[in-house]
Amino acid sequence: MFHEVPTGITDAFLYLENDGRRAATVSVLDAAKVTGFGIEILDPNTLGMDDLVAAGLDRLAIDAEIALRATLALRISSASVPPEFPLFVADHLRANGIELTVDDDEFVRRRRVKSETELDGIRRAQKAADAAMGVARSLIHELRPGLTSEEVRFAMQATCEEHGCELPDDVIVSHGAQSAIGHESGSGAIEAGEPVVVDIWPRDRVSRCWSDMTRTFVAGGGEPPDELAEYWRLTRDSLDRVYADLGPGANGRKLFERSSEPYIEAGKPTQLTKEPGTILEDGYFHGLGHGVGLEVHERPHMGRLDDDLVPGDVVTVEPGCYRRGFGGCRLEDIVLITEDGYEVLTDFPYDL
Amino acid sequence: MFHEVPTGITDAFLYLENDGRRAATVSVLDAAKVTGFGIEILDPNTLGMDDLVAAGLDRLAIDAEIALRATLALRISSASVPPEFPLFVADHLRANGIELTVDDDEFVRRRRVKSETELDGIRRAQKAADAAMGVARSLIHELRPGLTSEEVRFAMQATCEEHGCELPDDVIVSHGAQSAIGHESGSGAIEAGEPVVVDIWPRDRVSRCWSDMTRTFVAGGGEPPDELAEYWRLTRDSLDRVYADLGPGANGRKLFERSSEPYIEAGKPTQLTKEPGTILEDGYFHGLGHGVGLEVHERPHMGRLDDDLVPGDVVTVEPGCYRRGFGGCRLEDIVLITEDGYEVLTDFPYDL
Repeated sequence: MFHEVPTGITDAFLYLENDGRRAATVSVLDAAKVTGFGIEILDPNTLGMDDLVAAGLDRLAIDAEIALRATLALRISSASVPPEFPLFVADHLRANGIELTVDDDEFVRRRRVKSETELDGIRRAQKAADAAMGVARSLIHELRPGLTSEEVRFAMQATCEEHGCELPDDVIVSHGAQSAIGHESGSGAIEAGEPVVVDIWPRDRVSRCWSDMTRTFVAGGGEPPDELAEYWRLTRDSLDRVYADLGPGANGRKLFERSSEPYIEAGKPTQLTKEPGTILEDGYFHGLGHGVGLEVHERPHMGRLDDDLVPGDVVTVEPGCYRRGFGGCRLEDIVLITEDGYEVLTDFPYDL
Repeated sequence: MFHEVPTGITDAFLYLENDGRRAATVSVLDAAKVTGFGIEILDPNTLGMDDLVAAGLDRLAIDAEIALRATLALRISSASVPPEFPLFVADHLRANGIELTVDDDEFVRRRRVKSETELDGIRRAQKAADAAMGVARSLIHELRPGLTSEEVRFAMQATCEEHGCELPDDVIVSHGAQSAIGHESGSGAIEAGEPVVVDIWPRDRVSRCWSDMTRTFVAGGGEPPDELAEYWRLTRDSLDRVYADLGPGANGRKLFERSSEPYIEAGKPTQLTKEPGTILEDGYFHGLGHGVGLEVHERPHMGRLDDDLVPGDVVTVEPGCYRRGFGGCRLEDIVLITEDGYEVLTDFPYDL
C-alpha cells in the first residue's frame, strides 16, 4: 500500500486503479495526506456509509460494502489483487459479481525496480548498516570482559538512530553455537575465540526502505579457529563465484547453484545435495539471497526457487556455512542490479 | 500472529489450532524461536516441500499447498479465519474442500482482554508518552522563536527511546489551522497564541504494545483565544460525562452519544447530528475512541459503531472540537476497564 500511496495511514483502506484512474477509500481524517499523489478520494461518507450504519450493519460488513461500491464507482468488473488481499473483502466482491484473480507477478513487478527515492533510502540504510557494523566490530574485537550480544545490538541501534534509521530488536548478534541456528538473535556474554555472526537490517525512516548485511568476526580478535577459517574461505569463494555471474538476466536459481559449488566441493551439506524430505541444519542450509525494498525479504527469489534478475533489482547475496554445536560464518552484501552489471552497496571488509 | 506466537519472525507462516493442538509452518530458520510456546513445528520440508520444488511449482503455489497439508495434518476440515486472511491461501484451501468462515469476533475476543505482559507494556508505553508530552509542553510553552513541529516531534522521539519505546514519524504536532485537519502530522514554525494539538502513540519494544494520548496547548503559554478556550471547556465537559458512565458493560455507541452532548448543546456539528451523506470537517467530527493493544487502532469500537466494554479492555477516550481555518482542541486519555469500573493510565494534566 505504501508503494502506491506513500504516506502514513494507520487505518485500513482500499486502493484501486482502472483505466488510468487511481482511487482510495480514505476518510476525511486521512484525505489531506493523500493530496498531491493524483489519487481520487472516495470518502466512505459519500458512498453511503451513513445509511449502512443506520441499517445496523457491523464494521466488517460496512467495510466490505464500501469496498464494493468503490469498485463499482471505478467501473471495475474484474481485478488483479495481490496474494495477501483480505478474504472478507474478496468474498463480498465475488458474491456481487466482481471477478478477482490473485496476480503476484503484477504487484511484485511494480516493486522490484526501485524508484530513485527508494534507492536513496536503501543507500542511507546501508550507510547506517556500515557504520553500525563498524561499532560492532570494535566492540567484538576489544571484547571487554562480559560483553553481551545485547550490548552490541544496543550500540548498533544507537548508531542507526543517528543515521535516521531504525534497527529492529531481533537483529542478529549470535556467538558460538548460537551462530549456527537460523534466525537466532543471540544473547548473553561473548567468549574469546567464538565466531560472532552480525546480521543487521536497518530501515530508513523517510523512505521506509530496508537494507541488510552480515559479517562474521572472531571474538577478541585472535587467530580464528581452523574450522571457522575454513567456513570463511569457502564463503569468500562462494561470493567470488556469484559476483562472476551476477547481472541483469542472471537467474536466481543458477546463481544459487553457483554459490553452492565451493561447499559441495568441500563435502558440506547443501539444499541441492540433501536427502529430499529432510531438514538441513548444517553446512550451507539456506538460500543465496532475496530482494530488499519496502520489505526486508521480498522478491526476486535467489535459491531453490528463482527469478531472472532485472536492472533496478536490489538483492542480497549471503552464502554461509555452519555446524550445530560449533557455530558458523555468513557474509552478506547488498547489490543493485544495473543495466550492464551490478553495484555493491555494502562498503565493509570481509575480514574475520 | 504475534499475539499467538510472540516472537519476531520475518517470513510468512500459517498458525493453526485444533482440539488443543497448536502448530506453525515455520522453517528450521525460525523453529528455535518458537520453542517454549507449546507449538508444534510443521517444517515445510517435512510436508513435501522438496517434491513441490522439484515439480516446478512457484512460490505461491508451494506456500498454498504447504498450508493445505498443514491443515490436513491437524485434521481440520473447517476453520474460522480472521478477516484479513490471505486470499491465495483461502482459495487453495477451499478448492480442496476446507470450509473457511471469516470470524472477526473470535479473533478480536482473544485480543481484547489484555494479558499481564501486554498490560505492563501498555503502562510502559504510557509512561513514555507522559514523559514525552512533558517535553513537548515545555518546548511549546517556552516557544523559542522558530520552534517547529518537527523539532518537538524529534525531542519526543528521543524521550520515548530513553523509555524503551519507539515513536513513529507521523505522530501529530499540528499547530494553528493544521490542528483542525484529521490525522495531519503538522509541520513548520509554531506561532505564539496558536492552538497546538499533540497526539502521540509510542510503542513498547518488548511487548510490541502501544499507548495513545493527546493534549492541546496554547503556543507561548499566554491566554488562550476565546474560541480555543470554548472548545477546551466543551471537551473537558465531554470527558467528564464519559467518565461518569464508563465501566464494564458500558456500550461504545452510548458513550459516544454521551460524549457528543456538550457539543450538540453548544450548537457544534457532530456525526450524530450531521446530514447523512455529508463529510464532516468541523465540530466534533470523529468518534469517541478505540481499543489499543498490539495495534494502535483496534476493537472495541466507541463511536457510531459499538461494542460493549468488558474488563480487560484498554480504550482511548478522545473527544475534540475543531473549525477549519482556525484549529481545534482534543484531549485523549487511555483507560483500562476493570471488574468494577476503570483505571486511567494517563497521568498528565488537561490544561491548555
